[in-house]
Amino acid sequence: MHETKLRLIQTGLALILARGYNGLGIQELLDETGIPKGSFYHHFEGKEDFALQVVDAYMAQAHALLDATLGALDRPPLERVRSFFEAVREGYAAQGYLGCFFGALGQELSGSSEVFRHKIEGCMATIASRLATCLEEARERGDIPASTDPAQMANVLVNAWEGAALRTRLVRNGDPLDGVLDFCFAAMTAR
Amino acid sequence: MHETKLRLIQTGLALILARGYNGLGIQELLDETGIPKGSFYHHFEGKEDFALQVVDAYMAQAHALLDATLGALDRPPLERVRSFFEAVREGYAAQGYLGCFFGALGQELSGSSEVFRHKIEGCMATIASRLATCLEEARERGDIPASTDPAQMANVLVNAWEGAALRTRLVRNGDPLDGVLDFCFAAMTAR
Repeated sequence: MHETKLRLIQTGLALILARGYNGLGIQELLDETGIPKGSFYHHFEGKEDFALQVVDAYMAQAHALLDATLGALDRPPLERVRSFFEAVREGYAAQGYLGCFFGALGQELSGSSEVFRHKIEGCMATIASRLATCLEEARERGDIPASTDPAQMANVLVNAWEGAALRTRLVRNGDPLDGVLDFCFAAMTAR
Repeated sequence: MHETKLRLIQTGLALILARGYNGLGIQELLDETGIPKGSFYHHFEGKEDFALQVVDAYMAQAHALLDATLGALDRPPLERVRSFFEAVREGYAAQGYLGCFFGALGQELSGSSEVFRHKIEGCMATIASRLATCLEEARERGDIPASTDPAQMANVLVNAWEGAALRTRLVRNGDPLDGVLDFCFAAMTAR
C-alpha cells in the first residue's frame, strides 16, 4: 500500500475509534497527517469510501491475528481460540482500552447506513466462522462437549466479547474482557 | 413530566438510537415534533443536557423493568433475572432490533466525552448491581454454585448482553440475544 494512503488509514482508524465516524472531519485528518486534500481524494472517493477502507485494513489485521493464533498448531485448539482474544486484548491495551473498532463503527452507523451495517456484520461473521473451524477441531478431540454447535458457540464468543469491549471502553481497563473470557471458556469446557 | 418535554425525550431517544448523537440535529428534532426552539431551550440547556436527560429517561424505564421482573417474588430468582432480559428483548423487538440505547451512546461518545462515559458506565453498573442482588438470592438457595460471585456474574451477563444487542443491531433480529442468554443461563446453573 502507498505510504500516504497507509498513513491516512492508520491515523483515521485512531481518530474514528476515539471520536466516531461522525466526529471525524476530513480536514482534521489532513491537518493531523500533514497530507494535502488532493492526495486524500486521489486515494479515496470521499469519507464513506475512506471509512470502508479503514474497515478493510482493520479486518486485514484481524485476519493476521487469526492466522498467527489459530495457526499455532502445536497448541490445542481451545488454547488457540483463547489466544486470539488475548492478542486482541493486547491491541486494546495499546490503544488505551478504547474497545473494538468494528463494535464502535457498527453501533454508530448500522442504524443509519445499510452499507456499514452489512460491511461490519460481514467482518464479525467472518471472524466467528474462522473461530468455529477451530472449535470444531476442539469438539472432535473431545475438548468441548460433542453437543456443542461450533458455529453457534463462536458467535456467542464474538458477541459476548464485543459487549466486554464496549464495557472496557467505559471503564478503560481490561477487567470486563477477562471476566467474559474466563466465564465463557470455563463454561465451554464444563460438562 | 411536562408533556412537551416528554415528547422531545421520546422522539430524541428514537432518533439517537437510529442515527447516533452526532447524527441528531436539534432542528430535525424540532421539525419532527413540531415543537418550537424556545420550548426546547426552556426544558434543556442544549444538546448535551438533552441527551443526558434522555439517558435518565431510559434508565427510569430500565428501573421500572427491573422492579417488575426482579420484584416478581413468586418466581425463583434466576427466572426473574432471565425475565428482565426477556423484557428488554421485547423492547428491542418493538423498535426493530436497533439494540441498546446505552450501548449505542456509550460506544459513540465514551471515547470523546468523559461526561457520557461516566454517565453510561453508572447506568450499566447500577443495572448489574440490581441483578447481582437477585443472583445472590439464587446462590443462597443453591440454584447456582456457592462459588459464584454474584457481582462478577451480573457484570458478565450485562456485558455479554450488550454485545448481543450490538449484533442484533447488525443482523436486525433477536437470535444473538437468545444465543447469549441460553449459553449464559445454562453455564450459570451447570456444576
